[in-house]
Amino acid sequence: MSSGKILVAQGGGPTAVINQSLAGVVLEARRFSAITRVYGALHGVRGIVNEDFVDLTQETVHNLELVAATPSSALGSTRDKPDVAYCQKIFEVLRAHEIGHFFYIGGNDSSDTVRIVSLEAQKAGYPLRCIHIPKTIDNDLVGNDHTPGFASAARFVAQAFAGANLDNASLPGVYVGVVMGRHAGFLTAAAALGKKYPDDGPHLIYLPERTFVLAQFLDDVKAAYAKYGRCVIAVSEGIHDAAGTPIASLLAKEVERDAHGNVQLSGTGALADQLCDAIKAQLGIKRVRGDTFGYLQRSFLGCVSDVDQREAREVGEKAVQFAMWGERDGSVAIRRNGDYAVEYALLPLEDVAGKTRVMEEHFITPEGTGVTDAFRAYLRPLLGGDLPDAFRLRRTMVAKILQK
Amino acid sequence: MSSGKILVAQGGGPTAVINQSLAGVVLEARRFSAITRVYGALHGVRGIVNEDFVDLTQETVHNLELVAATPSSALGSTRDKPDVAYCQKIFEVLRAHEIGHFFYIGGNDSSDTVRIVSLEAQKAGYPLRCIHIPKTIDNDLVGNDHTPGFASAARFVAQAFAGANLDNASLPGVYVGVVMGRHAGFLTAAAALGKKYPDDGPHLIYLPERTFVLAQFLDDVKAAYAKYGRCVIAVSEGIHDAAGTPIASLLAKEVERDAHGNVQLSGTGALADQLCDAIKAQLGIKRVRGDTFGYLQRSFLGCVSDVDQREAREVGEKAVQFAMWGERDGSVAIRRNGDYAVEYALLPLEDVAGKTRVMEEHFITPEGTGVTDAFRAYLRPLLGGDLPDAFRLRRTMVAKILQK
Repeated sequence: MSSGKILVAQGGGPTAVINQSLAGVVLEARRFSAITRVYGALHGVRGIVNEDFVDLTQETVHNLELVAATPSSALGSTRDKPDVAYCQKIFEVLRAHEIGHFFYIGGNDSSDTVRIVSLEAQKAGYPLRCIHIPKTIDNDLVGNDHTPGFASAARFVAQAFAGANLDNASLPGVYVGVVMGRHAGFLTAAAALGKKYPDDGPHLIYLPERTFVLAQFLDDVKAAYAKYGRCVIAVSEGIHDAAGTPIASLLAKEVERDAHGNVQLSGTGALADQLCDAIKAQLGIKRVRGDTFGYLQRSFLGCVSDVDQREAREVGEKAVQFAMWGERDGSVAIRRNGDYAVEYALLPLEDVAGKTRVMEEHFITPEGTGVTDAFRAYLRPLLGGDLPDAFRLRRTMVAKILQK
Repeated sequence: MSSGKILVAQGGGPTAVINQSLAGVVLEARRFSAITRVYGALHGVRGIVNEDFVDLTQETVHNLELVAATPSSALGSTRDKPDVAYCQKIFEVLRAHEIGHFFYIGGNDSSDTVRIVSLEAQKAGYPLRCIHIPKTIDNDLVGNDHTPGFASAARFVAQAFAGANLDNASLPGVYVGVVMGRHAGFLTAAAALGKKYPDDGPHLIYLPERTFVLAQFLDDVKAAYAKYGRCVIAVSEGIHDAAGTPIASLLAKEVERDAHGNVQLSGTGALADQLCDAIKAQLGIKRVRGDTFGYLQRSFLGCVSDVDQREAREVGEKAVQFAMWGERDGSVAIRRNGDYAVEYALLPLEDVAGKTRVMEEHFITPEGTGVTDAFRAYLRPLLGGDLPDAFRLRRTMVAKILQK
């Protein structure tokens, strides 16, 4: 810490606001005279072992603000999960560059990376302040009311389902929209915020918090289709059978895993297609369409929550303050305070790392295919201002003449 | 025409601005004292034979304006293609309700419906003024500089690729995005407008105007991946082999066709998945992801071009003026006048109906996997104002200490 150099990096899947946190770190750091340089590692921890550092202190404030408003990780990201040997390489590089603070912006896997790096630094007797800055569209970090990046992705999902519902009402049939979320259904549940009128879709929501049973799913679709003459369905990519095996991997020919052992779920339309095929074959409904929202939901340019932007900026700023004025490593967390305001806390890394939050029970309806008003009240303020709204004709019917 | 009742309906796939045209018809019609009632048929021509009419004259201006800003067909749509018997039913109903004007908002298939109805009305000696109002995200109506609905969908595609490019730069690999467009590649080509910096994606674009050869595709991807360390690819759902058979239907187990004989291409992720599988298997690249933009690109709530909105409104208004002040049936067309302004013409129905425009040769680069500056100049003004922009860090590299 003697040199006053700090390092920031971004890990895991990008979000619409992850660069807000980066800008928060860089701009807040410049306000501390003890900090002489802000380095950024390219592509997360991999950029550290490769010594791929950029000097963020030389970025203009103007450009930092424009990058902050740009989705996806401006420094590049990685899925690497450091083991002890990897961490030793990290220390070697940090020591050579006299870096005393490590800020890592990421989700569960990244928080675990920070925990390991912090632990190995302590074991090696290297004075490194490690701060994890939360980010994940999955909203599955424990100890947080919600996580930066989630709200903007939720806004995309809500707007997408609002539109898909209108499209489906225009040309009736069954529509299946598959949403990201491995273990937590928050993002899929956000589809419910696209619903306005009582008969709007999504009519059914399938979350990873519940066991997925195909026969029950088909019964649900059949009943909704009979009631509404159409059916809009939100499905989490993480739905699984009773044994916990993802439905997507049951269908896939070949399963791909990342360094964290996660089965690859996104980047394929197989789950939507398989569910559509089952509906066509077993319910005899002709017009059945499936969309997989894929990477659009986390990186679409031009769909962002202003609340999310502000909070993502603040967790970056607070991370620097916790590091400079505090005395321990930790993970920055968002706490809700009132309706609606937030405050920030620094949680012990071991309280967050490697843990997964799932949807609270009171957010899910008893039948398991819908969300409660409590969830709507929870999510609505996060979606931000100027949310587009859908309107209908009032449709005063003309009396029939021929078909009386 | 004696009664002063006019009828409007919407056919084919919805767009982000099709309700602007509906509002244009209704609001302009109210300004003609000769028009006593504006009826809307629910779900296109099907609503006529079913006598499912709503009295749009009873809608408030306030609500019409809100519906105009809402994507998807507010009256509902249909894929029905009337034959002579179907048209005779239409006349029977129109005659019973004393309707003298028929406005149909739709694309190629809908323009052909208007042509048939107009022809059958003449044969039957029924005095019916038939006006086709253009609408299609495919931009494939002949005689038009562009069609309402295209620009907003193009904006979605450009924003989606701008974001997908950032995501792919952050976690490098190959990304395949499949875009709607059966015969015309305009919408897929719009992906190029998401490109800003010279090394940005999309690096390759595959259009239905060219024969798709898998071996050449794989060579192209290999070369781009070698050059950029990643590759973002835009693919039209309508790509086909030398015989004209869609690649998507070559892969599909079962081919679904609509009343117009069109093979169902959307609502499945099969094409993207198959292309990704081929890249993984034959190029040995590990991180290969495919997204199919599906229904989001035509009905996402909150992504619209203000230019598109304005023009969609105007074709509705002009349709009523052409009907009331003109002396023949026809199809309203948009003509470009300057850079950038438009004017409107009424084309004979037979000049538009059943014809398909494809991308002009000078819009496609010689190698066939990119678009020209002429295309960019053509499309850019249509995308409207406040287009979101992407920015990068300037990345001043820090000198390496260990790896000199």
